[in-house]
Amino acid sequence: MTAPQLFALTPGEPAGIGPDLCLLLARQAQPKPLIAIASGELLAARAAQLGIAIELIAVGPGAWPDSASAAGSLYVWDTPLAAPVVAGQLNPDNAAYVLETLDRAGRGCLAGHFAGMITAPVHKGVINQAGIPFSGHTEFLAELTGTEQVVMMLATRGLRVALVTTHLPLKDVAAAITAERLARVARILDHDLRSKFGIAQPRVLVCGLNPHAGEGGHLGREEIEVIEPTLERLRGEGLQLIGPLPADTLFTPKHLDHCDAVLAMYHDQGLPVLKFKGFGAAVNVTLGLPIIRTSVDHGTALDLAGKGGIDSGSLQVALETAYQMASSRR
Amino acid sequence: MTAPQLFALTPGEPAGIGPDLCLLLARQAQPKPLIAIASGELLAARAAQLGIAIELIAVGPGAWPDSASAAGSLYVWDTPLAAPVVAGQLNPDNAAYVLETLDRAGRGCLAGHFAGMITAPVHKGVINQAGIPFSGHTEFLAELTGTEQVVMMLATRGLRVALVTTHLPLKDVAAAITAERLARVARILDHDLRSKFGIAQPRVLVCGLNPHAGEGGHLGREEIEVIEPTLERLRGEGLQLIGPLPADTLFTPKHLDHCDAVLAMYHDQGLPVLKFKGFGAAVNVTLGLPIIRTSVDHGTALDLAGKGGIDSGSLQVALETAYQMASSRR
Repeated sequence: MTAPQLFALTPGEPAGIGPDLCLLLARQAQPKPLIAIASGELLAARAAQLGIAIELIAVGPGAWPDSASAAGSLYVWDTPLAAPVVAGQLNPDNAAYVLETLDRAGRGCLAGHFAGMITAPVHKGVINQAGIPFSGHTEFLAELTGTEQVVMMLATRGLRVALVTTHLPLKDVAAAITAERLARVARILDHDLRSKFGIAQPRVLVCGLNPHAGEGGHLGREEIEVIEPTLERLRGEGLQLIGPLPADTLFTPKHLDHCDAVLAMYHDQGLPVLKFKGFGAAVNVTLGLPIIRTSVDHGTALDLAGKGGIDSGSLQVALETAYQMASSRR
Repeated sequence: MTAPQLFALTPGEPAGIGPDLCLLLARQAQPKPLIAIASGELLAARAAQLGIAIELIAVGPGAWPDSASAAGSLYVWDTPLAAPVVAGQLNPDNAAYVLETLDRAGRGCLAGHFAGMITAPVHKGVINQAGIPFSGHTEFLAELTGTEQVVMMLATRGLRVALVTTHLPLKDVAAAITAERLARVARILDHDLRSKFGIAQPRVLVCGLNPHAGEGGHLGREEIEVIEPTLERLRGEGLQLIGPLPADTLFTPKHLDHCDAVLAMYHDQGLPVLKFKGFGAAVNVTLGLPIIRTSVDHGTALDLAGKGGIDSGSLQVALETAYQMASSRR
């Protein structure tokens, strides 16, 4: 019998709802051994604050569990805080703690101890306030794993949307859609749909950059000058790419019923419809990394921490997606 | 007893599916007197081609109907073609015919004979090929009615999305979001939601321009420099404007349940989600005109003309919307 795959769960910002989500989730039995990398003290205090009884089971290097946890329990790889946590109150003293949890999860994935990692939200601002340059999970993990280009993909049941550009001012988007970037992103998307999602021949719908995909050049020439020739070249490499299609009619059953993912040119072209469809149950997947990493699609919600009444739907889908990816991996 | 409100329906491009849609619709009784402004000969021939029996009832100036048509009949204000029509084959000789139907409908609305007009798709290319400058229904009607600024709004059951900019290359969008344009568009939207939709205090959600609505200036400064001050000024005029909000999380029940319309900054920010939600049942409404005009949200579909098996859902919603607007008008 081989040992079961272990998964790392990082609750992220200790003053936010991340710890709450992990505890709420632990009320149900998990299908896989899931290990929260966090302060045991924090989790115990938050569980008391929420009025829920969760047994915290200490695990760690040399002492990994060999089965999934039962309902009402949570495996914890204890990672000490630097300062006590008050729910809802950011404290830069704990910035290094947050990064330590990510570091443990990421290195554990690289070393093969974990089959994947699932992240709850961190708060960029408070980490920067502590004097640590940090621009997000994705960049942190890219650096840790020596990855040059990553691709952001959001997924919900029935729809996946990957982005050619992500967090850029809109005025800079058109210039950032270069043949080189588009090709790199499309190749990573194709590669990871095969290797991490087990899709033999991924079919990807590609949005145009301009309204009506440029309408034959009348509404912009990037489709003609950059996107079409690049897609044609990539088709020669065996990628199945349909488009460029007008984004406003792409997200309809006629097209979506026959694709594995949509490649949008920019953030607000692809994500409004994904989050509309997947409200409360969308997950962020980082493609291009040598490890499996999924994340919730929401923020720290500081005002709700420790209060209960929150929806763990996104974390649930982030877990399901990581489990599926790990079992599809080739 | 006052005379009932009449509505004008223009089937648009004669070689496309517009005539088919009007005939399919006429199989059911209409709630209002609806007058197709088209060639009777064309409609008779297309009905024969589709194998459906529709009685065409000639009406026109001086001989308007005083009740809605029964199932299986259609009122027609006969407008002669210049050349015979073959379904699916564009012919520039009929370009002037198409414009004549729009002219009759538009002038009829202005003169008060019609309470509103509903348009099926035209084909810009073939009109231009005939040597007539024409960039679309909206511009044609703006000129006919002497309207300086119109606003494009798409609507489906439960969601309305208006656009600050429409058919612009993406690279030109950021520069086009000026305080002046935003204020003009927001005022027209507010005015028409009141005067044409009967909403006493319209609540409008406004998207940011940049991802995450600029994230406090980190992802673009247009929200801080242009959008926020303009919205603030407009609030001082009594407009209820919420935002700027990140477009990717705006289209979720938390926000949408409490608004009358969304104002998106550009085409592919607002329309993918609208057409995803409203697939096959979305309608284009031109705001700012002194008349009521709604339109289907699809094209001429030349390859389907005369063949049957098409979906008249969008035209149905375009009619319902025009009827509702006319009865809400103040």
